[in-house]
Amino acid sequence: MTKQARGDLTRQKILQAARSNFSRRGYDATGVADICQQAGVSKGGFYHHFPSKQALFIALLQDWLHALDVQISALTTQNTPATVMLQNLAALAAPLFAEAAGQVPMFLEFWNKAARDTEVWAATIEPYHRYRDVFASIIQQGVESGDFRAVAPQMMATGLVALGIGLLLQAGLDQDGMNWGETTQQITQTFLKGLQQETE
Amino acid sequence: MTKQARGDLTRQKILQAARSNFSRRGYDATGVADICQQAGVSKGGFYHHFPSKQALFIALLQDWLHALDVQISALTTQNTPATVMLQNLAALAAPLFAEAAGQVPMFLEFWNKAARDTEVWAATIEPYHRYRDVFASIIQQGVESGDFRAVAPQMMATGLVALGIGLLLQAGLDQDGMNWGETTQQITQTFLKGLQQETE
Repeated sequence: MTKQARGDLTRQKILQAARSNFSRRGYDATGVADICQQAGVSKGGFYHHFPSKQALFIALLQDWLHALDVQISALTTQNTPATVMLQNLAALAAPLFAEAAGQVPMFLEFWNKAARDTEVWAATIEPYHRYRDVFASIIQQGVESGDFRAVAPQMMATGLVALGIGLLLQAGLDQDGMNWGETTQQITQTFLKGLQQETE
Repeated sequence: MTKQARGDLTRQKILQAARSNFSRRGYDATGVADICQQAGVSKGGFYHHFPSKQALFIALLQDWLHALDVQISALTTQNTPATVMLQNLAALAAPLFAEAAGQVPMFLEFWNKAARDTEVWAATIEPYHRYRDVFASIIQQGVESGDFRAVAPQMMATGLVALGIGLLLQAGLDQDGMNWGETTQQITQTFLKGLQQETE
């Protein structure tokens, strides 16, 4: 193994151990020593990769958001009508919500921290604005094509983000309470219907 | 002051100090000693009112939910059509979201804790199911009256709860990013339009 590959592996081990500890016990209750122990990495090794626990946390957040980015980009580069694009988005979200239970504690840690820490706040709010802008431009396109009513794209995009966050949290806390895939589809369908121009 | 009134006052002081500490520093980082110090109450006084930090936390959660309960009940006892009732609900939510910034850290603490602690989970999920049922019965009424399409009331109620949670979190984290009152109204309007029977 090259030195580079060894370094990458160590980094991944630290991220994995951090994810597991933060999810299980929370950010505040987890120390760098706990993460090092579970990852099998020395403190020196840790600080070689991350200057602080906060920096590690932001790296986790960015990994998580990057995975979402890739999926959303794949979707929006297709040259398809707004309605279909938003339906595809819902189809993408459905399996994500179905496996949300394991992710929700970490997701809540991000938001929780963002509410108290300006650096985490900036790292959280920037990509969230980016997603919202992507949704807004899809809606704008729908308005221009005449498929949608003359709605305010930014506001409606905020509604889609709200549905996403709200469904993710509910699915995570109440995993067995509902068929989350089907529910996500039906709810998106209703919101889309509300956006659409009434057919005369 | 009677002994009863003094007891109530002490209890309120403890709840107030806990709310402020949990919001600012988080549940895990706050000790019973911190709460006692800020409230100006002895440890004996504290444990007279609450057997543990967790019990205090659940009491805070129940106070918060009780305030919501009162507002929702006031609304749903009116004998009005489903559409109007849901519009009133949105009107009620708007000012709540506008002042969300201060509430969100506490709200996230509740959810965060619920994801890890079965007692808090039960206390969180029970009222949430109750709200959802109230929304579902309003929607059911709309379906029966022919105002709404033949949607699945429980699923659509889940959508309303998702919008509520998602808007609350966004408003709290991004207070100045938008006019949250107006946004809430417009988004609810769109969802309602999606529920409605198309007029021929």
